[in-house]
Amino acid sequence: MTLHLDNLRVRRLGECRYDSPFSEMLSTKQTSPHYVAEGDRVLLEDTVSMLAEHSLPSGEAPSFEAAGPRRKIYFDPAQVTAGIVTCGGLCPGLNNVIRGLVKELSVHYKVKRVLGFRNGLQGLTAEHRHDTIELTPERVRDIHSAGGTILGSSRGGQDADEMVDSLVLRGVDVMFVIGGDGGMRAATLLSEAIRARGLDIAVIGVPKTIDNDLPFTDQSFGFQSAFARATDFISAVSVEAAASPNGVGIVKLMGRHSGFIASYATLAANSADIVLIPEIPFALGGADGLLAHVEQHVRAKGFVVIVLAEGAGQDLLDERGLPQQNGRGTDASGNIKLGNIGELLKERITAHLTAVGLAPTMRYIDPSYAVRSIAANAYDSVYCLRLAHAAVHAAMAGRTEAAVARWRRRFVHVPLPLMTSRRNQVDPDGDLWMSVLETTCQPAEFGSAPARERVRTGFC
Amino acid sequence: MTLHLDNLRVRRLGECRYDSPFSEMLSTKQTSPHYVAEGDRVLLEDTVSMLAEHSLPSGEAPSFEAAGPRRKIYFDPAQVTAGIVTCGGLCPGLNNVIRGLVKELSVHYKVKRVLGFRNGLQGLTAEHRHDTIELTPERVRDIHSAGGTILGSSRGGQDADEMVDSLVLRGVDVMFVIGGDGGMRAATLLSEAIRARGLDIAVIGVPKTIDNDLPFTDQSFGFQSAFARATDFISAVSVEAAASPNGVGIVKLMGRHSGFIASYATLAANSADIVLIPEIPFALGGADGLLAHVEQHVRAKGFVVIVLAEGAGQDLLDERGLPQQNGRGTDASGNIKLGNIGELLKERITAHLTAVGLAPTMRYIDPSYAVRSIAANAYDSVYCLRLAHAAVHAAMAGRTEAAVARWRRRFVHVPLPLMTSRRNQVDPDGDLWMSVLETTCQPAEFGSAPARERVRTGFC
Amino acid sequence: MTLHLDNLRVRRLGECRYDSPFSEMLSTKQTSPHYVAEGDRVLLEDTVSMLAEHSLPSGEAPSFEAAGPRRKIYFDPAQVTAGIVTCGGLCPGLNNVIRGLVKELSVHYKVKRVLGFRNGLQGLTAEHRHDTIELTPERVRDIHSAGGTILGSSRGGQDADEMVDSLVLRGVDVMFVIGGDGGMRAATLLSEAIRARGLDIAVIGVPKTIDNDLPFTDQSFGFQSAFARATDFISAVSVEAAASPNGVGIVKLMGRHSGFIASYATLAANSADIVLIPEIPFALGGADGLLAHVEQHVRAKGFVVIVLAEGAGQDLLDERGLPQQNGRGTDASGNIKLGNIGELLKERITAHLTAVGLAPTMRYIDPSYAVRSIAANAYDSVYCLRLAHAAVHAAMAGRTEAAVARWRRRFVHVPLPLMTSRRNQVDPDGDLWMSVLETTCQPAEFGSAPARERVRTGFC
Amino acid sequence: MTLHLDNLRVRRLGECRYDSPFSEMLSTKQTSPHYVAEGDRVLLEDTVSMLAEHSLPSGEAPSFEAAGPRRKIYFDPAQVTAGIVTCGGLCPGLNNVIRGLVKELSVHYKVKRVLGFRNGLQGLTAEHRHDTIELTPERVRDIHSAGGTILGSSRGGQDADEMVDSLVLRGVDVMFVIGGDGGMRAATLLSEAIRARGLDIAVIGVPKTIDNDLPFTDQSFGFQSAFARATDFISAVSVEAAASPNGVGIVKLMGRHSGFIASYATLAANSADIVLIPEIPFALGGADGLLAHVEQHVRAKGFVVIVLAEGAGQDLLDERGLPQQNGRGTDASGNIKLGNIGELLKERITAHLTAVGLAPTMRYIDPSYAVRSIAANAYDSVYCLRLAHAAVHAAMAGRTEAAVARWRRRFVHVPLPLMTSRRNQVDPDGDLWMSVLETTCQPAEFGSAPARERVRTGFC
Repeated sequence: MTLHLDNLRVRRLGECRYDSPFSEMLSTKQTSPHYVAEGDRVLLEDTVSMLAEHSLPSGEAPSFEAAGPRRKIYFDPAQVTAGIVTCGGLCPGLNNVIRGLVKELSVHYKVKRVLGFRNGLQGLTAEHRHDTIELTPERVRDIHSAGGTILGSSRGGQDADEMVDSLVLRGVDVMFVIGGDGGMRAATLLSEAIRARGLDIAVIGVPKTIDNDLPFTDQSFGFQSAFARATDFISAVSVEAAASPNGVGIVKLMGRHSGFIASYATLAANSADIVLIPEIPFALGGADGLLAHVEQHVRAKGFVVIVLAEGAGQDLLDERGLPQQNGRGTDASGNIKLGNIGELLKERITAHLTAVGLAPTMRYIDPSYAVRSIAANAYDSVYCLRLAHAAVHAAMAGRTEAAVARWRRRFVHVPLPLMTSRRNQVDPDGDLWMSVLETTCQPAEFGSAPARERVRTGFC
Repeated sequence: MTLHLDNLRVRRLGECRYDSPFSEMLSTKQTSPHYVAEGDRVLLEDTVSMLAEHSLPSGEAPSFEAAGPRRKIYFDPAQVTAGIVTCGGLCPGLNNVIRGLVKELSVHYKVKRVLGFRNGLQGLTAEHRHDTIELTPERVRDIHSAGGTILGSSRGGQDADEMVDSLVLRGVDVMFVIGGDGGMRAATLLSEAIRARGLDIAVIGVPKTIDNDLPFTDQSFGFQSAFARATDFISAVSVEAAASPNGVGIVKLMGRHSGFIASYATLAANSADIVLIPEIPFALGGADGLLAHVEQHVRAKGFVVIVLAEGAGQDLLDERGLPQQNGRGTDASGNIKLGNIGELLKERITAHLTAVGLAPTMRYIDPSYAVRSIAANAYDSVYCLRLAHAAVHAAMAGRTEAAVARWRRRFVHVPLPLMTSRRNQVDPDGDLWMSVLETTCQPAEFGSAPARERVRTGFC
Repeated sequence: MTLHLDNLRVRRLGECRYDSPFSEMLSTKQTSPHYVAEGDRVLLEDTVSMLAEHSLPSGEAPSFEAAGPRRKIYFDPAQVTAGIVTCGGLCPGLNNVIRGLVKELSVHYKVKRVLGFRNGLQGLTAEHRHDTIELTPERVRDIHSAGGTILGSSRGGQDADEMVDSLVLRGVDVMFVIGGDGGMRAATLLSEAIRARGLDIAVIGVPKTIDNDLPFTDQSFGFQSAFARATDFISAVSVEAAASPNGVGIVKLMGRHSGFIASYATLAANSADIVLIPEIPFALGGADGLLAHVEQHVRAKGFVVIVLAEGAGQDLLDERGLPQQNGRGTDASGNIKLGNIGELLKERITAHLTAVGLAPTMRYIDPSYAVRSIAANAYDSVYCLRLAHAAVHAAMAGRTEAAVARWRRRFVHVPLPLMTSRRNQVDPDGDLWMSVLETTCQPAEFGSAPARERVRTGFC
Repeated sequence: MTLHLDNLRVRRLGECRYDSPFSEMLSTKQTSPHYVAEGDRVLLEDTVSMLAEHSLPSGEAPSFEAAGPRRKIYFDPAQVTAGIVTCGGLCPGLNNVIRGLVKELSVHYKVKRVLGFRNGLQGLTAEHRHDTIELTPERVRDIHSAGGTILGSSRGGQDADEMVDSLVLRGVDVMFVIGGDGGMRAATLLSEAIRARGLDIAVIGVPKTIDNDLPFTDQSFGFQSAFARATDFISAVSVEAAASPNGVGIVKLMGRHSGFIASYATLAANSADIVLIPEIPFALGGADGLLAHVEQHVRAKGFVVIVLAEGAGQDLLDERGLPQQNGRGTDASGNIKLGNIGELLKERITAHLTAVGLAPTMRYIDPSYAVRSIAANAYDSVYCLRLAHAAVHAAMAGRTEAAVARWRRRFVHVPLPLMTSRRNQVDPDGDLWMSVLETTCQPAEFGSAPARERVRTGFC
């Protein structure tokens, strides 16, 4: 998909006619208001060569609308009811985003009411739409100190028309959908159904992905908290492996399609010998295969530490005839169920090392919930708050079918369909992966692995 | 200073003739080497309007050279002796940078020797130049788990020629200067003296500033660790103030010229009522002055929490006739000594509240050393490592008089003189400060403060 | 004061006639109820020689009543209103104790009502007695995750009769006073006034001292959290001192009369060279004085780290003619105001080292609020909860003028007057201080210090 | 086994003839040396009734020898070689103990040499005895900041005579065995073999058990660090369960025979609904069974959180016909292999809730390695250091076949065989478990569980 100025434009419900409530707050004799200049935009590209590819005058270079408060807004705050829903797996910062939305809507825009729908999109069904939480500044005051989401969450989409009905019945004017891949797809469908009915409801997505695999986002919220926590588990298996005869430490981290958490946690922990990510296929056997390298580490220094993204080596599972092979199913969010690469590695490494006389002490950890359920760290707390502010400004200014994102350190508006149009992945030719290789000293490839797909340069 | 393609170009010692030692490591049948394409550059500007101002063809847009490994390098690693020095105040991540440099130089480039000079630039004087530390991978293996710098540090520059003599005498070919404002100035002078003598020594700066006030840097290393730690102290005074009759909590944070730590820590802690930063003057008295607002908070909710950057309100100290006023001195690094705004506020707030019948319980914390001496957090650990990798690649490719920096999420080379040509500050019209105002609900101004200087949009 | 069985007995309001509400909960076919056997007692002494000193039959050995639930209780829970107040300086765990009291009273004993008085004993004055907080399980659900006290606190006692009036007017039957030295004294006076009036109100003290200086208590709640946090600051000054030419790091910790925090934090941090505590006088000058030792450290390893309890060396301040000398005042709690020994050391060490040509880089931290305002750690969370349970059981069983304490790892009832009858101090002849000396390698004495008072073996 | 003065006496190699090296260090004009008075002893019992049971004069009451430095010692330090070995599973604090031993031996007693045997008792076999680590103060300086053990560890005992040969061949005079149940048994056998040969080698045990199940020990080192870490995982499953429709959170914690970690972590985390420990059998089915209670929680509040000690409900596994049933094996340390109660609960709860129309979202965590591999917290750091000091003093004074332990807050010497003579368990009739019941509000029993064995009052 080629990106140009046109398909980077976000939809608007209509003309902005109301004065922003900020005007009063900011009118001082010397402070120019903080409003975003309507005309300006943030460049999509960041290198001369990428920019040059478009061969366009700079005014027409592909670019995103800048996020932030507008002098004139679309909705009359006094009449507005806002809705919030959180979808998909947990991620540090969900409560911070909820809190930021509620406080910005209530305290600054003084909207009439904020409703929280429960347990993800399930909360927008006919059955559950009346079971909402009244979200006031008092109610959300301290929620950011805990992980999870006070609204609950669930996987899976729902019928778009039923969801629109729910918004209409509950009088929702602006709807915030905090979610991942599945959530953004659902928000897109919801937006389209609203548009088809000619309704005046704004839908703003707040992209959430602990894997950092959504596009057009410098780094997704919660990612830094998550990889920081993940390093604790790399340290744990490293300590265990180092203290055991022929110790093999394996930690399986999140990352269905993208190895960002595995890569960052490895760089931070600095004790892993081998990192395996979905972007780079690997072979187990053979002189240069993974097993040979594992053996070499155990022989040389007595133990080995492996960091594994859950989506790595999925091709190996198919070949192996696991139950997953014949028609791997999908989960409620539509994600393909992954085979358990960790179990395969445990089994194969144990067999190999035992065969060569190095019967291993295996230390395997899969910390999953313990990583994603923590509270946001200081950085993510700030990020979530600012993202929530941007989301509210966007909605109040009548933007819709849009996500708020951070792009090259600027908050921007991204058309919702773009958020699911591609995937952010670790670039095997980029400097992040290069630093991983320099740190672990592992080879660029293990054995005769199948060819990998090329990915566009990642931004991480 | 107008920036254009020309003054953004970094110097090179000469032509790169040696093969990078990475070539072997990376030559696989399917991985294209990770080398940086020599021609490509990272754009200085990130908005359409800023780009348009230059009215240049995109190929001539102001831009930085991308950092990273080159296929051909300038130095023969087997002949290279590298030097490292850390200057100025402590900052989380110094040991991580040292460790990253040493491991990259020794393990990957296999340079002959790495020397650590001690106690800042003092270590490059005739008196101290022989007291160096031999830096091996073994020596630096675990240093990143502690704060501070194993090399020691000090403030103040030294005679450039004496420093060059030291490099020559110790046989140093590539010199890494990790330092702030003062360190970058010294590195520039050192580079110039080297050039004047026609020597073949590369000087690479690694910019360090806990205040995040160096330009051309998304966020300086250690900054995230520092503001995260700073939030603990905001929480501490908040807890104290809230538990005391008429509690007034003040925490003075670092930030001589820039309020980044104060702003970020405030957003993360989310319990401060008022933030004061150097970029925005304020008045104490008057109906809209700071004291009136403090009183209002104490009356309304029983206590008040103030976050204060050390450089805030310095004009108030001059007016007040403190000893600092008449010829405030400078410290060894050439920084102007700041008056203690914290003490002034304590005194004036106590007097004011007492006068209006609200005799306060004052809780004042100045955590300084306790913030800057901590170890780097997970994010900064990764950042420092990658920055160190970039610095080594730059030096080995013969770049000199250059700093490595992260610009819009890309590692780049910045000519050294530019690093001290301006200051990164919080933009009072930008979205960071806007979010602070939205969070604290404080007014955009306190009283009739003197006009502030305009700053260019900050990148934070 | 000689302790014998008689003066270790706690008062009771009268006979226990009501069935404990636990009876139902615990009546299972095989669990013997957890009730405390009324007859049993916990020994005061723990060594053969101490026991033998009393030369009494074992049934008459000095001992405390065991704490815990009784089969029969004194109050009818359905009629009971309980009151809670927190006094004095902050300490980790205050909110945990409040929460434990409220949940035990409300959920298990099902008392009618729990009132929180605000801002310490001030809240029991005629002026403030009506400004109470209704304490329900819902209200206190998450308060333990924050430091401080939701009730507020203050120093200073109040008129006992006025306080009794408050209890009568608010219908309080059982009153919990969480406080230190001052709080326990006030609770004693309150109890006596209640007794004088023949009222049926139980007063139970929950001893609180971050310094760990209250007697008959293994370790006071919050102490472990506090010294753990204090180690961070020892590390901070150590990092700073080690990275500076002639670095001198000084951290001043809490400890007015007892050096427990200083001693424990030193053992945990393991980087201090010298520890100074109130129990052991020291001299500055002379060949064996502190200054000489400081100099020796700086010469030998380049820096020195000193941990200082705030009450150490107070005699030096008198001699020096500081303002404090002539009639040092007392604070609102009746504590003698301490002179600032930290400032004295900074000054004298700087002068001495400068004089001998080792002009120091001084790094001084006084973290005070930052140590005492934190939330309780896991251990203290458990401890506070169990202490609160014990306090409620004591009150409901009609004990009064009693404190709940942990004695040799058993919860016991201690007559209130005993809590202020002596002080728990570090025994200079005991194994804690011995371990400190073994760790720091400092001499048992610095110079010709004045003779110290003997203390009875501490329990820490 | 009845304990009396006689079987609480520890063995000694012979008469102490050398002056303690501490004498010089401690001889000051006013400090009485810190030496332990040889005659005094610490009482075994702590209640009047327990003491009275023995009906003995107080001088003959059952008691332990106090630990600590003696004025006269048995070995001539200049001639001593010490050995250290760590056995069994990891536990926070192992490195702290090693470090404490090495520093005390080297710096204070100035022994000739300290050897570390590798990988547990395996290191004392003929095959491995020469592969030792030279332990110097420099080598161990920073090891306490990491978890695990620098010596490595392994399960399983070795031939006692072969081990004695190793000590003789390596010239070891005093041997420190840090280990659990298995380690203490091995140390006993080793001691006996030494005695049988009439050798002059002291063996001192340092009891290690993360489960806190060794007797005659207030709390084992590392226990507080471990349960504190465990609370993080209870919080994680609680957050997950609360955010999911019909969420069931289960965390399986360590505790083969004793539920201390589960109990303490539950009290600290304060979010669990049900705790299951080995000491208290439970039934799954029936109106009062576990499944019925789980269902009730899910119906009432939408989710349930269960904390499970690994040794709980083992009888259920036998009944169920799992492979473990027929001849459950033992591991290398001789421990019976436990069936996986966690898997059973997951399966049965899922089946039950699904059957009643509450198909659950199951969140199960088994953090094991992540709990036991962490570094010691501040408290355990202090504890390990002091324990190590006590162990060295014991060995140098010629005690042998003894363990050092903390008993009622005093360091004491316990004859080694006693350490494996019984088990420390949670007393279902004691105040710890009472507090657990009061916190979780769970019933004292689930259904018609089999009768439990009585345990003697636990000390925790």
